[in-house]
Formats: sequence, structure tokens, C-alpha cells
Amino acid sequence: MKLFRFGPVGQETPGVLNAAGLSLDVAAFGEDYDEKFFATAGLARLAAWLETNAAACPVVPPGTRLGPCVGRPSKLIAIGLNYREHGVETGLGTPTEPVFFLKAPSAICGPNDEVILPRDATKLDYETEMAFVIGRRASYVSEAEALSYVAGYTILNDYSERAFQLERGGQWTKGKSADTFAPLGPYLTPAADVPDPQNLPIWLKVNGELRQDGTTADMLFALPKLISYVSEFMTLLPGDIITTGSPAGSGVGLHPPQFLQAGDVVELGIGELGTQRQRIVPFRLSE
Amino acid sequence: MKLFRFGPVGQETPGVLNAAGLSLDVAAFGEDYDEKFFATAGLARLAAWLETNAAACPVVPPGTRLGPCVGRPSKLIAIGLNYREHGVETGLGTPTEPVFFLKAPSAICGPNDEVILPRDATKLDYETEMAFVIGRRASYVSEAEALSYVAGYTILNDYSERAFQLERGGQWTKGKSADTFAPLGPYLTPAADVPDPQNLPIWLKVNGELRQDGTTADMLFALPKLISYVSEFMTLLPGDIITTGSPAGSGVGLHPPQFLQAGDVVELGIGELGTQRQRIVPFRLSE
Repeated sequence: MKLFRFGPVGQETPGVLNAAGLSLDVAAFGEDYDEKFFATAGLARLAAWLETNAAACPVVPPGTRLGPCVGRPSKLIAIGLNYREHGVETGLGTPTEPVFFLKAPSAICGPNDEVILPRDATKLDYETEMAFVIGRRASYVSEAEALSYVAGYTILNDYSERAFQLERGGQWTKGKSADTFAPLGPYLTPAADVPDPQNLPIWLKVNGELRQDGTTADMLFALPKLISYVSEFMTLLPGDIITTGSPAGSGVGLHPPQFLQAGDVVELGIGELGTQRQRIVPFRLSE
Repeated sequence: MKLFRFGPVGQETPGVLNAAGLSLDVAAFGEDYDEKFFATAGLARLAAWLETNAAACPVVPPGTRLGPCVGRPSKLIAIGLNYREHGVETGLGTPTEPVFFLKAPSAICGPNDEVILPRDATKLDYETEMAFVIGRRASYVSEAEALSYVAGYTILNDYSERAFQLERGGQWTKGKSADTFAPLGPYLTPAADVPDPQNLPIWLKVNGELRQDGTTADMLFALPKLISYVSEFMTLLPGDIITTGSPAGSGVGLHPPQFLQAGDVVELGIGELGTQRQRIVPFRLSE
């Protein structure tokens, strides 16, 4: 079973991709995939509910928009420079302990949504990342126990505006938090179904050209270390998201750098976690 | 009318301090002070509801714990180095455009709660700040219109662990996000009742000794600029909190620096917005 959410922006309802490959509408389960769901053993309850109710669930029509695979978290924590070559290519170096920052949760969007170039953006960049969702409250967690706090795995494309991030004074979050800068999904794959999260191929293409082609085996700091480390600085709540950094190949690391333009199409994926596809669109002052 | 929330941690219910100085329990209003409340003209609806129902509201017993004055926001945005002398004392300089970072919303606590020294903390520090709550969705807002996006004003003590913030590699959020590092309240004072937010005395004492004694008139970047600026980098949602920086006098700026220890008592206030009082307590592995 994999979890997804579908429907119009801000009105997503829950779905489940079952073992037969059918996308089931599980609105009848009556819960969103959010802090309360994860805090109350939601994955186990959902699986039990499906045993009785799956046959009666409508199928989600093909072409339906996918939303982010979980509801808005209290925190979206992003690990920086967690693959050695990415640290080199950005010129930001190799950290001796994990680097992290917060992305605004309002940046989260669906895995195939259009990504909006912010007004005055000149250096829009991508970063394919494996992300995970916290299953229970975590504070001062040991590395040995850390993986037991993971509810499941997914994909996040950690978009940046590099000029906003690095040339406007202050903190990275300034270039990491615009609307649509965090496509999330398509699925949350429960941790029990990801036997080796530290050995998954991770890739990204721009207009069909392969730009990132790595493996999660190359993380500088592995998942247990990341969870344990972050939990020393803040309490992780159920439903919180940690995204684990990106391999080499981001646009800022190319010679010369190549940033995204309106009309570009970004496709990415991580092993059995699925794929995403975003088209870049120009800024429009809207509502 | 001023808004507050009261009751046990995580189970706070809404209250109103009325013009007569009575603290009313307005649980019967049936809403929390959260994103939905602010997005739906909650302040006006609450005021109208009180005209009919105030007489029937129970009074909150003296000594009741106050919680944070609003519910957990999607974002807690902190402006850095926004008073010239604070930039000098921290050695971080005077910014040419606003600096901001995100604090984890899980750090928010009540205005008089105990503040927990994180494990291994050696440089706990305070910063009195005027904070405000966003009343409606804000994206690319002009300075001229910016103040119309403010629902009301309150106080935030922006606690930091300076070693975590500045000596552990990476981003400030690492030292800004521990549990209890963001006492918020006591009241949300609606913007209509704060005629001149840019001219309020702002002070803080440690164990009775005056450490910060400034005025919000001394901000480098005034409120309209801050709102307009941040709204270029991320969309502000109703209920989001922006805290506007601290005047000189934080512990890191003293000669020699003086950091907080278990047992210290921190008191602070801003003009008519109210006061806070926190006792520092040692780390305990709990839950």
C-alpha cells in the first residue's frame, strides 16, 4: 500500500494505491494524512480498515491531480550539503556535522504541479531528494532507535532561487520557501515497504537531459544520524517532514551554471518511491 | 478587547480580556484563534459575538496558565539584526536589506511557561521582540498596503542557544527552535487598538536587572517594509507570525557575555502589549 492525496489545491482527499496497482479513493476512511493521523497509528488503522472496506472504495479517475502526499506539517526540515559532490559543486563545502534549514510549509505542492518562477527570479534550481515523514514525537532520539520514528518515505524536489538564497543577505530559507518550491509525492511509501532506503537510485532530468544520477547510498550522514541529530535541536512531531539532501548535478554546479526557465520540464524519481514531473511557469500576480 | 488562550499545554481554549479588565472564557464562541479564524474575519465576528454573549461568559480564574495567544501558525518568521546596536553587539553587522529565518512552530509556548535549557546548552540567550499576526493571505504586498495585513500585535521572547546558532555549522534555525524557545503572548492586541506600534517601549530584566531598554521606534526596517519584503519570498497565511527583532542588550552582547542559567528569571514587556515572565529550568529527559 502507498498513500497519496488527490483533488483540487487545498481540498485534497486521501487515496491508497493498492498492491494490484489500483488507486482507491479512501475518503470514507474519514481522515487526512496529517499530524493526528500519524500520532494515532494511522497507517495500521488504515490498513485494517482497507481489509474490510477496500472493495467498496471508488477508483480515482486517471488524470486526477495529485496533491502533496501528506497534509501540511508543523515543520519541513531540509538537510543541506548531504552528498559530498553537491557540497563541492555549490562551493559550500563538506559539513562536519549535519546542516539543516527550514522551508516554509506553504511551499509544499503536488508532485506534478506547475512550479512558479517568483517575480524577479533569475536562478531557479532543482534538487531531487528523498524525504521521510515522522511517525511519532521524537526528542533526543538515539541513532539505534531513529528509524523506528519514520512513518514512510517519499520524494521532495527542493527548489531554490539561488540568488535569493545566497546573495540577498542572511539565511537560506529566503531562497527556499516560495510557493510551489516543495513538490511532495507522489506517494508516501510506508517504511515497512522500503527495506533499504539507503540504497535507492535518485535521478532528475531537465527537458529530457539527465542532470542528477546518484544513489541514496552516497549520503554523508545516513538517516539514523540525521534523525538523531535534528531531534537534539527541536522536537519532531508526527507528520513532520525531513528531506535529506540532493546528489550532484544541480544547475548551480554546472559549468557554466544553468538555471531553469519558464517552459522547462523537470522530471525526477527515486527507485520504487515513484516519479514527479513539473513544468516551470512564469510569475503571474494572481489569486 | 485583547485575546488570550488558557488551560493546559496543548489543550488551550480562547479567552478575551475585556475593556473592564475582566478575563472572559469564550470557549462558547466555538473557535480557536488559528488560521481559519483569522482567514474568516474572526476578530470582527468575535467582537460581534461578545456584544450578545459576554455577560454569560465565565470569568477565567486567577492563576490559570496562559498559553500562546494564538494557535500554531504555518510559519514563525523571525527578523534578525533589526536594531542597529544589536547587530553591532552580536558582531553580525548591520544588514542592508532585512534578514530573516524560520523558528520551528513547535518552539512556541505560553508567555509565563518555564523555559527548558536544552541538553548540552551553554549559551542560552533572550531577545524581547514585538511580534504580529497576519490577518489575511499576503503575497507581493506593497509597503503602502502592508499594515492592513496585520491582525494584531503581541510579544515574543526569541530565545537562542548561541553555540547551536553560530558554532555548529549551517543555519541559525539550529539554535532558535528548541521547545519553549518562543514564549508568545500574553495577549494578541488587535491592530485597531495599537495606534502607533512603531513607538512602544520594549524592555527585559534578568533576575531584576534591566538588560534591554529600547523602543520599537529604533527598528532598522519598519513594519511596512518587513511585511512587504517577506511577502516577496513566501506567501504569508492568516495566523502566521512575524517577530521583528530585538534591541541591544542580549547576553551575547555583554562584556563579557552573560548567558542564562537554570534558576534565572526573565521578565519582559512592550508598552501596552503586556508582560511575560519565564523561569529557566534544567534539561530533563521527559515524556
